[in-house]
Amino acid sequence: METSIAIRERRSIRQYRPGEIPREDIVSILEAAMMAPSARNARPWTFVVVTDKVTKDKIVKVHPYAKMGAQAECIIIVCGNESLSEYWQQDCGAAIENMLLRAEDMGYGTCWCGMYPNMDRVEPIQDIIGKTEGVPMALITLGIPDEKPEARGKFEESKVRFID
Amino acid sequence: METSIAIRERRSIRQYRPGEIPREDIVSILEAAMMAPSARNARPWTFVVVTDKVTKDKIVKVHPYAKMGAQAECIIIVCGNESLSEYWQQDCGAAIENMLLRAEDMGYGTCWCGMYPNMDRVEPIQDIIGKTEGVPMALITLGIPDEKPEARGKFEESKVRFID
Repeated sequence: METSIAIRERRSIRQYRPGEIPREDIVSILEAAMMAPSARNARPWTFVVVTDKVTKDKIVKVHPYAKMGAQAECIIIVCGNESLSEYWQQDCGAAIENMLLRAEDMGYGTCWCGMYPNMDRVEPIQDIIGKTEGVPMALITLGIPDEKPEARGKFEESKVRFID
Repeated sequence: METSIAIRERRSIRQYRPGEIPREDIVSILEAAMMAPSARNARPWTFVVVTDKVTKDKIVKVHPYAKMGAQAECIIIVCGNESLSEYWQQDCGAAIENMLLRAEDMGYGTCWCGMYPNMDRVEPIQDIIGKTEGVPMALITLGIPDEKPEARGKFEESKVRFID
């Protein structure tokens, strides 16, 4: 899929239908994440991919906006390593955007659900997955989409200033 | 350009050759930025696009790693609005990644230079562009590339854990 189309058509998907995602496609999405730039090439990210139903059900119980994760094929928790870079949140944000676009490109649906710096979400997630991977910054639901929200342009002139 | 190729081939470009970038291409890159998702659709970003040579020269003097911005057609300063969202850094990171990919897609080169939370960079930039747009989080150099670093895969298995 053309880059400009993936960027435009990617929307948050909250309805999923059953269907497996081959492991190599998940790996391809994670590779896209890791091809994002990071300050000083610190790569301050780690990924916990949850396909286990019991663990998914635990996760969606502690995050107020991730209920659809129970229906999605997997939940990917993106963890950041604060000790590697002061830019870790920005770098992980870029990595996540690559994941969302690569998933869109392959016909999958995703939804980015925020956690850090909301510790009411971070801590219960750490209790479920452990603390090995650093701070769970966000979770991404990934699955076969069962809705198709319309693409939309979003240029806002008021958010741009030119110094010519 | 295919999404997967844009993701893989995007590299930080630090050598630029002279050449104009049509204003509509800059707008297209900014639109890509604004098509990134943001928590609660807060869209906590603003963009200051600097093509003025005098202002570019001032900017590259106060940022230790942005010298190539003087040769680039423009410098885009991405500002974040902390008051709109606690996720502003992550959201702006996603918006920047969209910019870099859309620029790659159109044959341009970019380099993302970090600023916030490094106040030694943020404050002098605010002195140059003013404080209207919130916190200058990062600057992106954008121009006609005069180097072509090789694409590279970057999957690191050690950064992934599956819970199946």
